[in-house]
Amino acid sequence: MDRLRFSPIAAGLPATVPFTGPETLERRRGAPFIARLGANENGFGPSPRAVAAMAQAAAEQWKYADPDSHDLRHALAAHHGVDPAQIMLGEGVDGLLGLLVRLTVAPGDVVVTSEGAYPTFNFHVAGFGGQLVKVPYRDDAEDPQALLQAAARHGARLVYLANPDNPMGSWHPGSTITAMLDDLPPGALLVLDEAYAEFAPAEAIPQIDPADPRVIRFRTFSKAYGMAGARIGYAIGPAPLIAGFDRIRNHFGINRVGQIGALAALADQDWLHQTREKVATARDRIAGIARDNGLTALPSATNFVAVDCGGDGDFARRVLAALADLGIFVRMPGVAPLDRCIRVSCGPEPELAAFATALPQALALARTA
Amino acid sequence: MDRLRFSPIAAGLPATVPFTGPETLERRRGAPFIARLGANENGFGPSPRAVAAMAQAAAEQWKYADPDSHDLRHALAAHHGVDPAQIMLGEGVDGLLGLLVRLTVAPGDVVVTSEGAYPTFNFHVAGFGGQLVKVPYRDDAEDPQALLQAAARHGARLVYLANPDNPMGSWHPGSTITAMLDDLPPGALLVLDEAYAEFAPAEAIPQIDPADPRVIRFRTFSKAYGMAGARIGYAIGPAPLIAGFDRIRNHFGINRVGQIGALAALADQDWLHQTREKVATARDRIAGIARDNGLTALPSATNFVAVDCGGDGDFARRVLAALADLGIFVRMPGVAPLDRCIRVSCGPEPELAAFATALPQALALARTA
Repeated sequence: MDRLRFSPIAAGLPATVPFTGPETLERRRGAPFIARLGANENGFGPSPRAVAAMAQAAAEQWKYADPDSHDLRHALAAHHGVDPAQIMLGEGVDGLLGLLVRLTVAPGDVVVTSEGAYPTFNFHVAGFGGQLVKVPYRDDAEDPQALLQAAARHGARLVYLANPDNPMGSWHPGSTITAMLDDLPPGALLVLDEAYAEFAPAEAIPQIDPADPRVIRFRTFSKAYGMAGARIGYAIGPAPLIAGFDRIRNHFGINRVGQIGALAALADQDWLHQTREKVATARDRIAGIARDNGLTALPSATNFVAVDCGGDGDFARRVLAALADLGIFVRMPGVAPLDRCIRVSCGPEPELAAFATALPQALALARTA
Repeated sequence: MDRLRFSPIAAGLPATVPFTGPETLERRRGAPFIARLGANENGFGPSPRAVAAMAQAAAEQWKYADPDSHDLRHALAAHHGVDPAQIMLGEGVDGLLGLLVRLTVAPGDVVVTSEGAYPTFNFHVAGFGGQLVKVPYRDDAEDPQALLQAAARHGARLVYLANPDNPMGSWHPGSTITAMLDDLPPGALLVLDEAYAEFAPAEAIPQIDPADPRVIRFRTFSKAYGMAGARIGYAIGPAPLIAGFDRIRNHFGINRVGQIGALAALADQDWLHQTREKVATARDRIAGIARDNGLTALPSATNFVAVDCGGDGDFARRVLAALADLGIFVRMPGVAPLDRCIRVSCGPEPELAAFATALPQALALARTA
């Protein structure tokens, strides 16, 4: 008997990973990137108050974080006007998505998502033996009707939708989301990933009773709050579902510095407002760079812009590779037709300027390859 | 169909949690603890070099951590004289134990541990549908022979042993551990939790080929390195098993500040050496406090001391409750006969002095209750 054998589900999983980190790419190319614009990180950084709180908390790292995240959870509850029992903190949205799948999906259960949507969610679904059913994007946006139809046809347990969407940056009005809930098949739960919500226009955010048993929402400090490294995400949903996470989560999994930093970041809504303005300016800048190169930037309600490179996926992949060679880290959608685009994260002007310099060269290289 | 239904395994899990955090206890009592000596945290704190590195890293929290933990993994490999492919970083030993169970245990598989040993490991085994078989401690230490016999009798998939042990602080010589490997039933993997290894005498640490397919070891920055809040643990084991973690882990789950801090902490072995000496002094101090109160401190190879309160579990629980009322946070083993003890973490003298002041009062209260 092989001592190193894996459990049946794990044995059937591929050895691939959802994303290769930029540090790995830097090691491969033997030099650091000039511009880190690929992971939808927020180079405008955390609130100075959060930075100060985290720096001060460093000496107290000998303590575990509060496993209940009491102070942060209560502050978030007040911020969102929900009950603290309707909020669960976790190691980023990624960690929480994994827990949600584990909590709700039995092997063989169907989970519906969009072809080209968040790979890490798919990683978790496969990781717990769920069966993924994917529907195509429509007009570079996730397609609520197609998702609902697939959910009904397959008796889906979960339906994943990101609003605003990653990787395309598109968004649906909140009214479309609430209408989706009314048409959601019995037994299905909507997984509403709102990681980019703070960048979106107000009308993109649906008004949903947090006790509504049809949906669980996910938010994060990684994007608008500029704290991807802290790994602090949270779910908002009905209390019985939120309580379920306590059955399976790593109770002491959140790091203390991040927890303290997130509380300080939440209290600095002025910084968040300034970040939104900087990101809006950067989106326009990226669109201008695209235009200057004869390319089209897609409208975005996020901190990144999908730039249509005007060719097929192979062409965009050549642009991406050429940009990486020139020191510019960006990523791109994984499937056609979305993969005609590259995805450029908003960042400070020096990095966007480096992108502006590199893009014409990358396009020329891609065209002659 | 209930939208909020849980998957069959999750539905069968209790809503309990392995440990209540001290912050929760503080909120219940309405005041902070005077002495935080219950979670085997290390109040002597992280290396000042780690603190400085973490403080400096705070402003860079907008970046995700390197998901491969390349630099830290390679530094640990050099430190332990193993290959980087034999090391996996994770969100504390707790997080890694959960992943190991998920990776190796199918529902119904038997996992052997000791009655009274690490509750969080049991939490994970139950959480993935494993069947726990527990053997009693012998002479306040885990019992390798009993573990092996149970493993053979039940065809165990995993056998858990902490060396040094938590919650009793006892330890086996490394030669006992390597002998265990030779008697491990086919198909069983030894889960060797060495969270407290750095506090133990050198002869407690077995010499094991990291490629040995019979065992996976766990280490942490939470204890001797004084960085519990950072959530940086690691596994050392055969590369094919280590690679398996990549199939299921939250690749971006580690926080960046902790990752950077751990690298700096590892480089400051002088601080680790000083911490070992401070902890040894604190162990003697706790033993002296016990003696002054007519109690017996058990020998310890860790950063905590089990103090035999001289009565049964109910008596020790009354002592624990009285100590908490007096502002002293300690914990205790969960089952008889271990629960005649309270478990006191080593810490700086002011906290131990507060414990020394409170203990006689707590004992008096417990005796008159």
